[in-house]
Amino acid sequence: MKQPLTEEKVFKDPVHNYIHVQDTIIWRLINTKEFQRLRRIRQLGTSYLTFHGAEHSRFSHSLGVYEITRRIISQFERSGYKDWIPEESLLTLCAALLHDLGHGPFSHSIEEAFEMNHEDWTCRIILEDTEITEILRDVEEDFPRKVASVISKTYEHEIVVNLVSSPLDADRMDYLLRDAYYTGVNYGTIDIDRILRMLRPYNGRIVVKESGMHAIEDYLMSRYQMYWQVYFHPVTRSSEIILRQIFRRAKELFQEEYKFRFMIAPLEDLFRGEVTVKQYLMLDEALVQTAFMQWTLEEDELLSDLCTRFIHRKLYKYVEIENLDTDMITEIRSSFAGAGLNPEYDLEIDYPTDLPYDVFRPGAAFDNNQILLLDRNEQLREISEVSDIVRSISGIHRGRYHLYFPQDKLKKALTRLPSSVAEIFAK
Amino acid sequence: MKQPLTEEKVFKDPVHNYIHVQDTIIWRLINTKEFQRLRRIRQLGTSYLTFHGAEHSRFSHSLGVYEITRRIISQFERSGYKDWIPEESLLTLCAALLHDLGHGPFSHSIEEAFEMNHEDWTCRIILEDTEITEILRDVEEDFPRKVASVISKTYEHEIVVNLVSSPLDADRMDYLLRDAYYTGVNYGTIDIDRILRMLRPYNGRIVVKESGMHAIEDYLMSRYQMYWQVYFHPVTRSSEIILRQIFRRAKELFQEEYKFRFMIAPLEDLFRGEVTVKQYLMLDEALVQTAFMQWTLEEDELLSDLCTRFIHRKLYKYVEIENLDTDMITEIRSSFAGAGLNPEYDLEIDYPTDLPYDVFRPGAAFDNNQILLLDRNEQLREISEVSDIVRSISGIHRGRYHLYFPQDKLKKALTRLPSSVAEIFAK
Amino acid sequence: MKQPLTEEKVFKDPVHNYIHVQDTIIWRLINTKEFQRLRRIRQLGTSYLTFHGAEHSRFSHSLGVYEITRRIISQFERSGYKDWIPEESLLTLCAALLHDLGHGPFSHSIEEAFEMNHEDWTCRIILEDTEITEILRDVEEDFPRKVASVISKTYEHEIVVNLVSSPLDADRMDYLLRDAYYTGVNYGTIDIDRILRMLRPYNGRIVVKESGMHAIEDYLMSRYQMYWQVYFHPVTRSSEIILRQIFRRAKELFQEEYKFRFMIAPLEDLFRGEVTVKQYLMLDEALVQTAFMQWTLEEDELLSDLCTRFIHRKLYKYVEIENLDTDMITEIRSSFAGAGLNPEYDLEIDYPTDLPYDVFRPGAAFDNNQILLLDRNEQLREISEVSDIVRSISGIHRGRYHLYFPQDKLKKALTRLPSSVAEIFAK
Amino acid sequence: MKQPLTEEKVFKDPVHNYIHVQDTIIWRLINTKEFQRLRRIRQLGTSYLTFHGAEHSRFSHSLGVYEITRRIISQFERSGYKDWIPEESLLTLCAALLHDLGHGPFSHSIEEAFEMNHEDWTCRIILEDTEITEILRDVEEDFPRKVASVISKTYEHEIVVNLVSSPLDADRMDYLLRDAYYTGVNYGTIDIDRILRMLRPYNGRIVVKESGMHAIEDYLMSRYQMYWQVYFHPVTRSSEIILRQIFRRAKELFQEEYKFRFMIAPLEDLFRGEVTVKQYLMLDEALVQTAFMQWTLEEDELLSDLCTRFIHRKLYKYVEIENLDTDMITEIRSSFAGAGLNPEYDLEIDYPTDLPYDVFRPGAAFDNNQILLLDRNEQLREISEVSDIVRSISGIHRGRYHLYFPQDKLKKALTRLPSSVAEIFAK
Repeated sequence: MKQPLTEEKVFKDPVHNYIHVQDTIIWRLINTKEFQRLRRIRQLGTSYLTFHGAEHSRFSHSLGVYEITRRIISQFERSGYKDWIPEESLLTLCAALLHDLGHGPFSHSIEEAFEMNHEDWTCRIILEDTEITEILRDVEEDFPRKVASVISKTYEHEIVVNLVSSPLDADRMDYLLRDAYYTGVNYGTIDIDRILRMLRPYNGRIVVKESGMHAIEDYLMSRYQMYWQVYFHPVTRSSEIILRQIFRRAKELFQEEYKFRFMIAPLEDLFRGEVTVKQYLMLDEALVQTAFMQWTLEEDELLSDLCTRFIHRKLYKYVEIENLDTDMITEIRSSFAGAGLNPEYDLEIDYPTDLPYDVFRPGAAFDNNQILLLDRNEQLREISEVSDIVRSISGIHRGRYHLYFPQDKLKKALTRLPSSVAEIFAK
Repeated sequence: MKQPLTEEKVFKDPVHNYIHVQDTIIWRLINTKEFQRLRRIRQLGTSYLTFHGAEHSRFSHSLGVYEITRRIISQFERSGYKDWIPEESLLTLCAALLHDLGHGPFSHSIEEAFEMNHEDWTCRIILEDTEITEILRDVEEDFPRKVASVISKTYEHEIVVNLVSSPLDADRMDYLLRDAYYTGVNYGTIDIDRILRMLRPYNGRIVVKESGMHAIEDYLMSRYQMYWQVYFHPVTRSSEIILRQIFRRAKELFQEEYKFRFMIAPLEDLFRGEVTVKQYLMLDEALVQTAFMQWTLEEDELLSDLCTRFIHRKLYKYVEIENLDTDMITEIRSSFAGAGLNPEYDLEIDYPTDLPYDVFRPGAAFDNNQILLLDRNEQLREISEVSDIVRSISGIHRGRYHLYFPQDKLKKALTRLPSSVAEIFAK
Repeated sequence: MKQPLTEEKVFKDPVHNYIHVQDTIIWRLINTKEFQRLRRIRQLGTSYLTFHGAEHSRFSHSLGVYEITRRIISQFERSGYKDWIPEESLLTLCAALLHDLGHGPFSHSIEEAFEMNHEDWTCRIILEDTEITEILRDVEEDFPRKVASVISKTYEHEIVVNLVSSPLDADRMDYLLRDAYYTGVNYGTIDIDRILRMLRPYNGRIVVKESGMHAIEDYLMSRYQMYWQVYFHPVTRSSEIILRQIFRRAKELFQEEYKFRFMIAPLEDLFRGEVTVKQYLMLDEALVQTAFMQWTLEEDELLSDLCTRFIHRKLYKYVEIENLDTDMITEIRSSFAGAGLNPEYDLEIDYPTDLPYDVFRPGAAFDNNQILLLDRNEQLREISEVSDIVRSISGIHRGRYHLYFPQDKLKKALTRLPSSVAEIFAK
Repeated sequence: MKQPLTEEKVFKDPVHNYIHVQDTIIWRLINTKEFQRLRRIRQLGTSYLTFHGAEHSRFSHSLGVYEITRRIISQFERSGYKDWIPEESLLTLCAALLHDLGHGPFSHSIEEAFEMNHEDWTCRIILEDTEITEILRDVEEDFPRKVASVISKTYEHEIVVNLVSSPLDADRMDYLLRDAYYTGVNYGTIDIDRILRMLRPYNGRIVVKESGMHAIEDYLMSRYQMYWQVYFHPVTRSSEIILRQIFRRAKELFQEEYKFRFMIAPLEDLFRGEVTVKQYLMLDEALVQTAFMQWTLEEDELLSDLCTRFIHRKLYKYVEIENLDTDMITEIRSSFAGAGLNPEYDLEIDYPTDLPYDVFRPGAAFDNNQILLLDRNEQLREISEVSDIVRSISGIHRGRYHLYFPQDKLKKALTRLPSSVAEIFAK
């Protein structure tokens, strides 16, 4: 089933040094226009507005995920682990390479605004007569469906699904390393060689040799730090909020049959809720940014203001408060309205939370979100049973409320707000 | 004249770790829309098509140039070197920060296609009533003009010009380090701390303490390697050729009053040759890429084909030949025409050359393109007089002809070409 | 009081890139024979037997501690923090540079074996007429005493003591970075630039700006990982155990007036318990290793065997057990004796523990072992009050018993041991 | 012949991340006392007196050479190159691991002083009944001889010799990377992954694919820089000169039957010129340093002074002069004698030279010191024929005379020297 290249091809990669391509199918997949499109989607959405180095694309991340998967599999095969199924190698590699294929521009924000799901799009692109589909069919007629089922986690061999999505999958390992490299923060350094050496296929899933526990602890801590330092950075959240507001406002205007100075096909389809695969593939971040740039000149003041903020990075400010209840929110919103502000747009409440690792519930069966350690006696134990540090962090549900708002507008309205509310924003 | 911030601000930067901003003027300049626009212009143009990591922007490079300059000046001041003029610090920092302000999208290609010059645009943006101009005027009325004159190398104090443009300027040092970091090649590693410690202001220009000679040799070798490994990479050249052909074809069509399916203001102005500063500031790579994406659907087959190649990375192939004279070129071109190919578009000849360092001509006066070493007896000597390695490489004018062509088209026409020509491309 | 060098001197350092020496006193101190002796004492004792790269000396660590301290102070002075006392700079730098001066060969083991204390020796070397003393006296007559009092934590200005010893002192920061670099593990990577930028002199002690909390969390986690991965590595513990047994056996023999084939002055004095500063300064790891090498040929079998193990790295094996009580220990020891083993030497019990950070006890006053965060309202809070992650780890008192033993000897005696004991070692 | 370990063992290594041991024979060789002895011999001799980080041992270098060789071979086997002889793998790995086994303490100096050769000692240790010999015999009776013949370059299959010693051997690659890492200079960074990927077994020797030319250029330039920045550093040369003078003086005294305060077996044998393998294996740097430390107390003033200089790092100063002829040298020496200095010890002339790469002489046959490029047409060309940069540097024979002397002594004698001579040293 594999079709080895006559000579291995490589991509120079700052994170893994070289990405090695050894199979014709992989090489051809990379050269499709659907995969090349990922060059035009940033891996970290608007994070580049906080960390100027974070301009890396989903193209490079996807190659990275493929490469890590390749190394894991190659080690499984070299070591002759009997629980690994060598016939599944190519399938696993294809799924790893293509798992992010359906991401749209500024993915998380656009998905929220238009109730889409990138995983569905990934499967559609794999299945619906694209260059990708054609190449996968060259392996076998049913191969596109198999790849899609791995990505949607329904493939029959759980171990293959595990390699592509689980707490220790190649996806997470690549993005920690890559996002750390491009932002320049050094919290993402994990000993990937050691982690890879410690992975074992065991009884239909991927587990970790017990002696690798400290490396996993370190990996989970890195993940924790990256969440709070990078992914949840308030400046990034602020730009995402504005992004979603732009989409919301444009959609409202579209539904009101507002006459846009600038409108373009895939966006229009998006507003209409009828996007074909062909149009979706033309939807990239260049297009979204170009629309926003043009919309800075729109007559609708709100849209124009929001786009100006996004394009020229005049973002919302924020205040952090520890407690916030529904009554307070209602009060703030109504006093905003009373002071001539627009509570729908001039205030956004954000409460970022993340569990770095979900604790094991005693008595429950092992599930796919758990990391299992394999001890010398071939017994499995969920990691937080063994590691103090993992147990300590797995309950942490840290989070504070952040209120985002346009400081210039608020300043002008400050005297019209009740002092109890004004106080919050005056910090 | 300086207006220190109450608290130093920093940007996290993968190359310099932190960029330190200590002056209000610098902080305000960074937050202008003109400077923020540099986020939408890649530092390395189309190189990301060769090195997928090279998505970094001129924004990050400009911050880097500023930071290196800041470190040089801070060292000059800490060491109390008497040949440095402390009053020129802010001017130097502003010029360093802003020196690339006028770069357009895919800068080198667009400049060639439309006979523009980014330095002129930089000066226009600094001088013609932008947010930048306003902030610089807050320093003093004449300050915008001063900054522009440093960038156009006409400022009265040569030492300031030297820091911003000379063989050892902050610009070159940042781009070597940064381009190496983002492409992932490791040829760009230079001992910047040592180089900075060895710089001396001396008699109105920047020279190098003799004991820093080896560090400079290494820097020049890195530059040499980066040119051949990265900047002149044939895949990058191929994409630049297609880019220029797109601009050329679109301009031709525009002049023939072809009706574009998609056309947008700043591009139209560009074709017309009448771009205002305001329009120029809207011209970014997102816009160019969006136009190209839309043009893949144009009726004009040539334009549509070229845009398809660029967007989906189906680039021209190349062959390398050692000798090529005018007669051969004429022969190839006419046989291309005879075989139904378009010699204007289906063949491009490229001959990349670079002098890593220009040798000193004995008897000539020292000029600004030379690196001067300062020995213990306070004598200056041009570096190639002292360093064997620099002397060796300064004469190297390596170069080979590369012929670029669309392989698919050529393949079909191959039998219609005379065998002497067909042979060249059959390799 | 400071005596600036005419030109700054530098040392090339892999961890900090360059160590900058700007004061004549520091330069002269480095060039004394007492400070140069630190080149012959390894920073990590026997860790090189586990991590072959860990051959770095206390000389390089001491330079590193000096350099970090220099950077902290230089930042305090640049920022003009009013709670810093600029007159204490040179004192702080000298104490930072010299704080490890009294370390003996394989420091921790020799201190345990001979009930010595390196801090006392540091003070003696500073005070008792060495080249060091003489140079310090050149600053002022009382300066040696001041430096010694900072090191023994009795100096009147607590802030100076804080910089040299506290949970965030330059000592800990350098050793984490340096030990990680030389062992090659990547758990020690901390964002030292950020930590340094976040330190504030405040009310007579060093505190951390609240926004630096995540960097401190990461630092404490690195410390935690380094302890378990490097400092407490069982192979290192095994070699330390043998080292202590060698010292113990040699001392026993010395007291029994055994006639050593090889004996040498400073060692003899050490056994006798009467070491002068002059002799102590001749006591380095070369000497200890040479003695051990020669003792491999001693007639006393035990000493010869132990030295052979150490020199040729034939270390003790270990088993790990979760619970161990006094009865069990007594049983094991007596059964060892019964089986012809030597319970004094053929069994060592090790229980490594460490608190990565000591939690704040509510109600208690702030003490020097705490890390205090300074919030926007200039309020101090102990870090574990604010950081979930620090609170989580500060209670962790992990530890397991390790039994170390000579496997070859045990193997032969195994059948003579009761099965309950044999079982433990048979794993 | 190979005996795979049940589970691969690794060593953590800062340069290669992990050293992988897959064969029982290799594992057992590493654990011999002869190989462990290399922990007590520094890789860079006295360089630690210049670069304080350079304390790394020949043990770690030897593991590194083994690891690079392992990677090369593993790639040859994975790619199925037909010119490689898989049966020679274990032999090549053993020779790579053991090639430095015979190095003595401060190797180059001791070899010069006592006319020894570490390669001969390597072969003796491999052949003369050591733990090493015994293990190699377990492979086959004749295996020790084979390993020794590879190291002495007489083995029948040149390709095996090539991997262990040639301009692109694993030895050179490891030391460039390792010495750069431990000294902290960044000139040694080479793209080892790329170089390894470009190596090809071809017609009984190792050649380089032409597309790897730039990586080789960079490697040769790194080598050039490392020579001038590190290996030939004047401070290191100064310490080596003193080292050789100590050996010379001690030997003179020994021959004069001087009664040493401290003398020890392997040294005595060395002076006598009769060292057995057993004694040689006890000769390590700890022993040499201990002797020197004790000799600082010798009655012979010259020996005591030299040892004091070495141990406490009070080295000779130097002056650099461009031309020096025999007459001048004679004059200086005689005027030294006249001024009461000792021309045999108070003056050393050093003229370090190195050819970074030996140019190909047209017409000559390819020899083992050449790097050959393999082009697409399977033609071999010596690299300097193709690379301008290699051609440029291969003729460079840079060098200047350095005169080393004890500054304190010279200062006192300065007035007694003729002014023409005094002038040279007064700089």
